[in-house]
Amino acid sequence: MTFSQKLMSAWETSGAGLCVGLDPIIERMPASIAAGPRPVLTFNKYVIDIVGDLVCAFKPQHAHHAAVGAEEDLAETIAYIHERFPRAVVILDAKRGDIGSTAEMYAREAFDRYDADAVTVNPFMGDDSVLPFLNRPDRAAVVLCRTTNPSAAPIQNAVVDGEPLYTLIAKRAEQLWNRQTNVMLVVGATNLDDLGRVREAAPSLPFLVPGIGEQGGSAREVVARGRRADGHGLVISASRSILYAGDEGQIRRAAEAVYGDIAD
Amino acid sequence: MTFSQKLMSAWETSGAGLCVGLDPIIERMPASIAAGPRPVLTFNKYVIDIVGDLVCAFKPQHAHHAAVGAEEDLAETIAYIHERFPRAVVILDAKRGDIGSTAEMYAREAFDRYDADAVTVNPFMGDDSVLPFLNRPDRAAVVLCRTTNPSAAPIQNAVVDGEPLYTLIAKRAEQLWNRQTNVMLVVGATNLDDLGRVREAAPSLPFLVPGIGEQGGSAREVVARGRRADGHGLVISASRSILYAGDEGQIRRAAEAVYGDIAD
Repeated sequence: MTFSQKLMSAWETSGAGLCVGLDPIIERMPASIAAGPRPVLTFNKYVIDIVGDLVCAFKPQHAHHAAVGAEEDLAETIAYIHERFPRAVVILDAKRGDIGSTAEMYAREAFDRYDADAVTVNPFMGDDSVLPFLNRPDRAAVVLCRTTNPSAAPIQNAVVDGEPLYTLIAKRAEQLWNRQTNVMLVVGATNLDDLGRVREAAPSLPFLVPGIGEQGGSAREVVARGRRADGHGLVISASRSILYAGDEGQIRRAAEAVYGDIAD
Repeated sequence: MTFSQKLMSAWETSGAGLCVGLDPIIERMPASIAAGPRPVLTFNKYVIDIVGDLVCAFKPQHAHHAAVGAEEDLAETIAYIHERFPRAVVILDAKRGDIGSTAEMYAREAFDRYDADAVTVNPFMGDDSVLPFLNRPDRAAVVLCRTTNPSAAPIQNAVVDGEPLYTLIAKRAEQLWNRQTNVMLVVGATNLDDLGRVREAAPSLPFLVPGIGEQGGSAREVVARGRRADGHGLVISASRSILYAGDEGQIRRAAEAVYGDIAD
């Protein structure tokens, strides 16, 4: 199965484009888990079990595992997702940004070591920083394009040949990088006009959209502005607003609320 | 000791700005090391022992450790440098590119888990992707500015308020980010005019300069165009042209050749 087939199947089976980010923070997880053995892995599995039937994707955050030496927990978390919810796409959020053979090492890390379906990638070093992640039709690169944070604007709005950098990246992704239909773009939810411009520049690409929930963007408006002509095309990610909503029932309800906002 | 004091001492003690990158590749290291226990750690220590007295810095590459699950080897490599050559600055080359609390997790990884003196950082997400690495005067961020690879040009030359993105980044680094004198810039060796422009935009910042050796830039010209008014300011990095030069004597001579080109 190619990456684009897996993603389409995940959208159709789950009925929406909900992605839950896995940012395990020991200080914020339930005390009983934090105090037990392997809290990072235990917390990830706990959340996966609660929300797995609602999601089209999980997005484990590399940083939260690397900071505490929990690489083995990260690998076991991804294996657990593949086993329990095999249709869910796993996007390793690592924002890798290197070139050539070093980028190939990061592709090996994401796809062989961790068995992620996709990895987030930073395009600041150009084509060379993206192409090494696109050699396998069953694995994808999710390229930063227009992020949600205000301080990104001066850089991502810099002008190349009369257009902003973020639409240049979107066009390169759509026209040059996507030969095996395994490129996605990261487009934040907080600026809807920019989201619409990226959709115009890249009509066929799936978008990973962070910035709803804790960061404040409206899911309904994101769907209206960001979806493709076929009605799909969005993987809408919420992390801490779900993970740290409270007890098991509150986590479930927080995920259902986002799901309800974005499902047809 | 602050980061800038440690770097100045490393320049003065070593007599030059030579940095050796540690990119352990099992297929390219001596067969006797590759076949033995913990080849990544053993190879790193072997190179460190051969060249340590010549360098002002070592630059271990995160990707080459992460791809093969060798995080513990990376941690022990850095501890070994601190023990054997305590004046050498350790720059973890990880090109981290995230924001807010996720960037703080990467700072924890680089500075607490690995005890690196500095970490390379990607500025594509703006101030938010750099500032979380600058909270400690004894630890530095080395920010990508103008990299050596041709495909980076369209992005890094994009125009902001009439100037290229890479000089905008250099000015922000010099004027806004460097309050604790713990910011460096990555400026490639292959475009000397751009190197000169970055020096004008950031007269006080140390540069990490890759791209000599295997990538073809001339060390002498880099020194002439890149050094600061005080004669220091450059950390010139070579990796595979030294690591894989041949036997112990050939590795030593490859490092001495670069050292000779850049020392006064």
